[in-house]
Amino acid sequence: MQAHIITIGDEILIGQIVDTNSAFIAKELDKIGIEVAEISSISDSKQHIVDTLNAARQRCQVVLITGGLGPTKDDVTKHTFCEFFKDELVEDPGVLANIERIFKHHVGRPMLPANRSQALVPSKCTVLMNKNGTAPGMWMKRDDTVFISMPGVPFEMKALMTDEVIPRLQKEFSRPYILHKTLQTYGRGESEIADTIEDFENNLPSAIKLAYLPALGKVRLRLSTKGPDRDVLERNLDEQIAKLQELIGDIIVGYDDGELIEVVVGNLFKQKNKTLAVAESCTGGQIAAAITANPGASGYFKGGMVTYATHSKVELLKIDQKLIDTHSVISAPVAEAMALAVQNWYKSDFAVSTTGNAGPSKGDSDADVGTVFIGIATPNGVYSQEFKMGSQRERVISKSVNKAFELLQKEILKN
Amino acid sequence: MQAHIITIGDEILIGQIVDTNSAFIAKELDKIGIEVAEISSISDSKQHIVDTLNAARQRCQVVLITGGLGPTKDDVTKHTFCEFFKDELVEDPGVLANIERIFKHHVGRPMLPANRSQALVPSKCTVLMNKNGTAPGMWMKRDDTVFISMPGVPFEMKALMTDEVIPRLQKEFSRPYILHKTLQTYGRGESEIADTIEDFENNLPSAIKLAYLPALGKVRLRLSTKGPDRDVLERNLDEQIAKLQELIGDIIVGYDDGELIEVVVGNLFKQKNKTLAVAESCTGGQIAAAITANPGASGYFKGGMVTYATHSKVELLKIDQKLIDTHSVISAPVAEAMALAVQNWYKSDFAVSTTGNAGPSKGDSDADVGTVFIGIATPNGVYSQEFKMGSQRERVISKSVNKAFELLQKEILKN
Repeated sequence: MQAHIITIGDEILIGQIVDTNSAFIAKELDKIGIEVAEISSISDSKQHIVDTLNAARQRCQVVLITGGLGPTKDDVTKHTFCEFFKDELVEDPGVLANIERIFKHHVGRPMLPANRSQALVPSKCTVLMNKNGTAPGMWMKRDDTVFISMPGVPFEMKALMTDEVIPRLQKEFSRPYILHKTLQTYGRGESEIADTIEDFENNLPSAIKLAYLPALGKVRLRLSTKGPDRDVLERNLDEQIAKLQELIGDIIVGYDDGELIEVVVGNLFKQKNKTLAVAESCTGGQIAAAITANPGASGYFKGGMVTYATHSKVELLKIDQKLIDTHSVISAPVAEAMALAVQNWYKSDFAVSTTGNAGPSKGDSDADVGTVFIGIATPNGVYSQEFKMGSQRERVISKSVNKAFELLQKEILKN
Repeated sequence: MQAHIITIGDEILIGQIVDTNSAFIAKELDKIGIEVAEISSISDSKQHIVDTLNAARQRCQVVLITGGLGPTKDDVTKHTFCEFFKDELVEDPGVLANIERIFKHHVGRPMLPANRSQALVPSKCTVLMNKNGTAPGMWMKRDDTVFISMPGVPFEMKALMTDEVIPRLQKEFSRPYILHKTLQTYGRGESEIADTIEDFENNLPSAIKLAYLPALGKVRLRLSTKGPDRDVLERNLDEQIAKLQELIGDIIVGYDDGELIEVVVGNLFKQKNKTLAVAESCTGGQIAAAITANPGASGYFKGGMVTYATHSKVELLKIDQKLIDTHSVISAPVAEAMALAVQNWYKSDFAVSTTGNAGPSKGDSDADVGTVFIGIATPNGVYSQEFKMGSQRERVISKSVNKAFELLQKEILKN
């Protein structure tokens, strides 16, 4: 069975915001065996919404819509629903009580007519109560298709998906399992991998789909399958994974079920009861930010320093000025000294450092744009590696962050 | 005139990645007066791609497609193009030369047949040369609609958009101007604002569209319009902005043309030739990361410390242990001491600090999840403010980062 996700709002169409809601919804549906056939972003125009709803129900049994539920005039989803379902708006007492509760406890001013109007819902809909906001979710059926409308505010939508939509979809439809396994490889391009595993790919059972996901110097291979028996699917995928291990085991650096490398590395630190500190120059805090974005980071992350200016490396990290003068601030010895300095300061087991030039122009060093040294201090010593990360600032930074976690992963696995 | 953006790839539909390409493309089109009517993400299935191309050309004169151009079997865009345009693939010598160049200078291994096959393009297409990768862009026409295909790798797509697609679209079509002006407001909800400006909204000329964009404690109001004369549009929007200033001037905190607040604040620091340092606890490096993601940060950003563990605040920032014992680590005096400490260490004009509990569980303090203190040190002194940022970790962190920049903006504007 298939789903269509529709996000409504001009802010996506003019590029003012990136649509992250769809990815969240798609992931949750995938977990319960519902395949997403299409994601559409359209404007707040009634006719376009109706057209898209009609197109969606040709292909899909589940249509999920976010956005267009605010109290203001530019929000038209509910009225469009009435047109589409030939229904009319009625005030829902439960929703009204929820709005009153929110105003009493969180807003601290009297309700306005516009706020009360958010309690109006199509008479035939099942309300999905939104504890985090005044716009309710709605569940409606037409023929065999379920239409679900949710607010566009990400945290309201997420809570509604988890608490209301997913359990109801599980009850409403019998679904197959969808399973993915993703291999991370490093060191060869996708065409080269495809060449090596050509026979494997040609002999892949038709129920298993292979995808190549190239990104930032590595290629991920994703095997996907679906069916009624989870154990069988698991076995079938494992069998193919074993074949890939024989063919390209030398370049497989990890397995990944959509987990970010910083989460994988964080879990390793927690398991092994080791601690970490960071000293960042060209990555400017992004390694620390990636670590601390995840709950439980305080269990292993001691802290970090962002020494952006050269003199802060000398003054704060106590890097010897002579070392910088001799080797330049973007060099292996400086990367290593930075890692050792924060390891020592924070009394951590491991430390990682970055020094490089992310561009667009050259800074305090003659190093080419894209040159980055990453230093790793472990309980057994320190080393560093030089990388050429290209010339696009954003890309240099994100590749460096990624690479830092890869090196950390390798080291923590040894310890 | 309208455009339809189509992104191809299962990784978006299973939620493995967030589609950021569409937002970039939409923003670039908006700048040259092309309205995006719809963004669709669909799978690598030939039939679905053909259906979507057909639907798109009903409504739009420009259809932009990203993805599905790799050298591997799961990439079907080119073959689908041939079917759609009743064309066949031929080898393009220019593209072949580009692939050979990339292999010689960047890959360092011989080309495989799959790599050479990337030089195959539909015979009727105009090639858009991709200097950053082996998959070429393609430009084709059918009736009055232009179809443009680009690789899905973001930095390759971005370069093609900027260097090839936008200039060609400007030549091909005469377009109106599209203008947006966005006001940032703070302190009132969207329904309350809508109530205050009801008459204004009812009397808005039909050519001007008003949108409310609520996010993280603030509401942005966007006015959009389009037409043939840029100066007239500018005047019309300014006239309405002036009316809004009269009505809600007290809650307008800024103007915004889609610029991120960290960019706005960074520019203010550069203009005023002031410097900044940060001390982050609960934001874990995200303030520094947001600053340094932008080129030119080294002109004003001295650096930062991520003091995640309580004892690192004592040992590294030299915060008095007694202060922490008396007030708790999440408190106004500690936030202020942290800001002063990094201001002093980095010898910066301004400093910002965060200490709080992002959750999900309580840490080294009894403070409720969501309690955050932000400290601001200026050349004239130090102060701090307490915030309740809710209970969702991700949200607490991003609201705190945002708020830190807002407070900095207010202070730097005074100096």
